[in-house]
Amino acid sequence: MEDKVVVNKKVVLKHYIPDGPATESDMELVATDTLLLRLPPGSTAVLVKNLYLSCDPYMRSRMTKHDEPSYVDDFVPGTPITGYGVCKVLDSGHPDFKIGDYVWGVTGWEEYSLITSTEGLFKINHTNVPLSYYTGILGMPGFTAYVGFYEISSPKKGERVFVSAASGAVGQLVGQFAKLMGCYVVGSAGSDEKVNLLKNKFGFDEAFNYKKEPDLNKALRRCFPEGIDIYFENVGGAMLEAVLQNMRLNARIAACGMISQYNLERPEGVSHLFTIIAKRIRMQGFVVFDHYRSYREFEEKVVQYIKEGKIVYVEDIAEGLENAPAALVGLFAGRNVGKQLVVVARE
Amino acid sequence: MEDKVVVNKKVVLKHYIPDGPATESDMELVATDTLLLRLPPGSTAVLVKNLYLSCDPYMRSRMTKHDEPSYVDDFVPGTPITGYGVCKVLDSGHPDFKIGDYVWGVTGWEEYSLITSTEGLFKINHTNVPLSYYTGILGMPGFTAYVGFYEISSPKKGERVFVSAASGAVGQLVGQFAKLMGCYVVGSAGSDEKVNLLKNKFGFDEAFNYKKEPDLNKALRRCFPEGIDIYFENVGGAMLEAVLQNMRLNARIAACGMISQYNLERPEGVSHLFTIIAKRIRMQGFVVFDHYRSYREFEEKVVQYIKEGKIVYVEDIAEGLENAPAALVGLFAGRNVGKQLVVVARE
Repeated sequence: MEDKVVVNKKVVLKHYIPDGPATESDMELVATDTLLLRLPPGSTAVLVKNLYLSCDPYMRSRMTKHDEPSYVDDFVPGTPITGYGVCKVLDSGHPDFKIGDYVWGVTGWEEYSLITSTEGLFKINHTNVPLSYYTGILGMPGFTAYVGFYEISSPKKGERVFVSAASGAVGQLVGQFAKLMGCYVVGSAGSDEKVNLLKNKFGFDEAFNYKKEPDLNKALRRCFPEGIDIYFENVGGAMLEAVLQNMRLNARIAACGMISQYNLERPEGVSHLFTIIAKRIRMQGFVVFDHYRSYREFEEKVVQYIKEGKIVYVEDIAEGLENAPAALVGLFAGRNVGKQLVVVARE
Repeated sequence: MEDKVVVNKKVVLKHYIPDGPATESDMELVATDTLLLRLPPGSTAVLVKNLYLSCDPYMRSRMTKHDEPSYVDDFVPGTPITGYGVCKVLDSGHPDFKIGDYVWGVTGWEEYSLITSTEGLFKINHTNVPLSYYTGILGMPGFTAYVGFYEISSPKKGERVFVSAASGAVGQLVGQFAKLMGCYVVGSAGSDEKVNLLKNKFGFDEAFNYKKEPDLNKALRRCFPEGIDIYFENVGGAMLEAVLQNMRLNARIAACGMISQYNLERPEGVSHLFTIIAKRIRMQGFVVFDHYRSYREFEEKVVQYIKEGKIVYVEDIAEGLENAPAALVGLFAGRNVGKQLVVVARE
């Protein structure tokens, strides 16, 4: 355990962004605060060194001030961005966490964090896989894919599955889970490079670049001549509109995210909603926070899949806290290829 | 059994209506066909005299030609409108139906019908309630309310329920089922007369005239300061948009119909769909046809409720087949008060 005072560099949100794209200049790196790397006596908190930080789509909405509370709190301007990360425990007043443990959970975009709310903090049980995987395939996004696919979308062997934002942290796993179950799987993504990844790395049966499709409805009809049983919804808007026109009877929509809408002042309207009735569709929204009771079951299963080579995983790694704002902005613009994360320190 | 040839008056659809309101002149009464009121030997059909015909919202979409099949077939211009009705069996080649039986199910808008597809035909077990009830509270609309409320919306005592088109055949029952379960129930309707009916006849806790509300979102907030647990969706469009802004965590939408959209060439866009994720909403479309296996259970239960006075029921009765087109057009325009039906004959 280090017993010293350090300058704790942080990435803070400068101000709320009403709508439109987030830019790097909405955040700044500050290096003014110092921190004693030891907890005061009697503390029940956990003091950590941040190793890997996760960039996730839901963070965009936290940069906007909401009059009414959403499912995650708005960021507080002038304070560090918060999000998921992988950390090493430097000091602990909490019985579940010991010095030297690796953990993942909600932390700050800074070099060191004092975590007082340990509810969403998980000890990392497997250190023989890359620790960074706990920002993605073994962390919140991976668990989101697992819950959304297995619990929310009620999949059956042979069903036809469509995944949007399919090369992202969640989508790449949903597609692979679906293939493991014996489904026919198609993904959409925003570049030819990503489409190539879907088909040749993640084993999707088919994939398309939505930016090159003048008519999404036709693209889906081409890939799903008999229609879609399960839509894993990550993007919303025009894609949802097109999907609704291609659903089969008793289809399901696992509504996980709507990244295409997060920058908009007013979301796009979706008009083909009567299909929900005509085709007896179940559209179910979910948030991974509600499901953590089954996290350990997921962790064991997916670590096993990784070791057996049944699942592959692609990360897009930005080096250094100073590059975190660009990485996050790039995620919202779809510039990442695979799971976007930031390395603050490797040990 | 009558053994004679009759002129069989019919209401036929003259032509498909692309969009916009249906009018009486889109239909016509013809009296040219004759019919022998006896089945040929060896027939397995059922020959009926039509007593009561049901006017239902879903019939609007059947007046438009669809390129792709919807959940109900398009009408065929030049042939009689078809829909639900209550009939008396005049002759039968089918073992389940005897001469003199009363039945309800899909029949034609004509004085007499030859029913060859008896799959959706039910013998009426209770003739000590008005037979016309089998076009509504004890027929398809009533069963729709039952399935949608008890099976699709997963209600619990004390939950907050909103019903749109609440004074219609389906809505008035949903509200009463919800009250019987101990829920707080609010309904919307399109006239003060209907609102009065909801509050003073059907026992809704609150009701409002949506045509007099400049802001549906605010109207719902006023009626549901703590939000809505269950929305029984009959109208779609702007009402759905407003409802989404007032949903509670883990709310459910039983999507039964979207009558506000049926006359439109392109349905209105609904933009607050991200709420489905943030609030973990389940939106489930359903069509009553899929659920008829539990019809008899429903029939016994609701007949009992009627006899005990636990449920009340309001009908809007048009007299004579010649007035059927006006009754149907009036339904689409919301002019009916209670269940709209047409009396062709009383016996």
